[in-house]
Amino acid sequence: MPAPEIERLVGLFARLPTLGPRSARRAVLSLLDNPKAQMQPMIETMQAVVDHVQICPICGNFDTQSPCSVCADLKRDKKQVCVVRDIADLWALERGNIFHGVYHILGGVLSAIDGVGPDDLHLDSLVGRVQKGNIEEVILALPATVDGQTTAHYVADRLEKYPVKLTTLARGVPVGGELDYLDDGTLQMALKSRRSL
Amino acid sequence: MPAPEIERLVGLFARLPTLGPRSARRAVLSLLDNPKAQMQPMIETMQAVVDHVQICPICGNFDTQSPCSVCADLKRDKKQVCVVRDIADLWALERGNIFHGVYHILGGVLSAIDGVGPDDLHLDSLVGRVQKGNIEEVILALPATVDGQTTAHYVADRLEKYPVKLTTLARGVPVGGELDYLDDGTLQMALKSRRSL
Repeated sequence: MPAPEIERLVGLFARLPTLGPRSARRAVLSLLDNPKAQMQPMIETMQAVVDHVQICPICGNFDTQSPCSVCADLKRDKKQVCVVRDIADLWALERGNIFHGVYHILGGVLSAIDGVGPDDLHLDSLVGRVQKGNIEEVILALPATVDGQTTAHYVADRLEKYPVKLTTLARGVPVGGELDYLDDGTLQMALKSRRSL
Repeated sequence: MPAPEIERLVGLFARLPTLGPRSARRAVLSLLDNPKAQMQPMIETMQAVVDHVQICPICGNFDTQSPCSVCADLKRDKKQVCVVRDIADLWALERGNIFHGVYHILGGVLSAIDGVGPDDLHLDSLVGRVQKGNIEEVILALPATVDGQTTAHYVADRLEKYPVKLTTLARGVPVGGELDYLDDGTLQMALKSRRSL
């Protein structure tokens, strides 16, 4: 029987992924420990995000500038486009600071179970970017799941007729991986794609 | 490399209990799916909480009214005071709708490891409430942990000289509990506190 405002806030938190009613209560209680010092910055930051964050019209990334800081970066190689499922995957690649091209966010992967068809993905905009002819390589960095690979094949089919190099992420033993603990599929791919030392 | 506002918001979420950097990113990304529809209500609710929620001067509960709705409720038995560790435990008891007295929030339990001493708990205010003489029973609903029980004994010592009945929650087999899966301590307490049918 918390105050209605608190109850409503717990309800809003409980809707977030990875949080349930119990962890939402704990999160809100920790915010309540010092509402002014903890909630006020959150309120202001959220307001700044709502007011300024927009979707990049080129790649679909979120940023306060448009085009986004990746697409606007002159040092980035615009000839390499890395196709990712969502922004979380873009962030994962950016955290590694390993890719210096630009991105294209599909907004999901094809999934019969979840009812995601080609029209639900940002495919036409990808084809449009490739059609313009300035792109040399499209890297399909989609999840190594059945849905992810189905999507990769679909995207490859759509781009087949354009003079663009299509690549995908390597499969193999992850760094630090013990062979004993790896699944058969990964081991098989790692053996098949073996390279000379 | 998300926009600085987004990064700050992820950082604020990651500080909440039960959330880490990864789940904070997922939570923020889900909010970004539709910032206006998802974040605006959260901003407004948080602002309402910051503006209106206060600590009840009697029991230490959070509420938009002062004294809190429990302490102000005329139907509640003010002669029964249930001592709980924190507001989460108060909410747990209130969810069950099983207790019709009032509460006193200690704000923690004694803990040598965490450096929580008697002065860190709201003990003086509890003694003050008991001293006023209108209280018949103090129910110590503290966690069944070593720290919780140490605290219960300490509170009992402090209240010993007042003409008040001190009780604690029953120990035993939880409803739906399989004997086979219970720890020895619980089984022992359940056997010791057995009652006639």
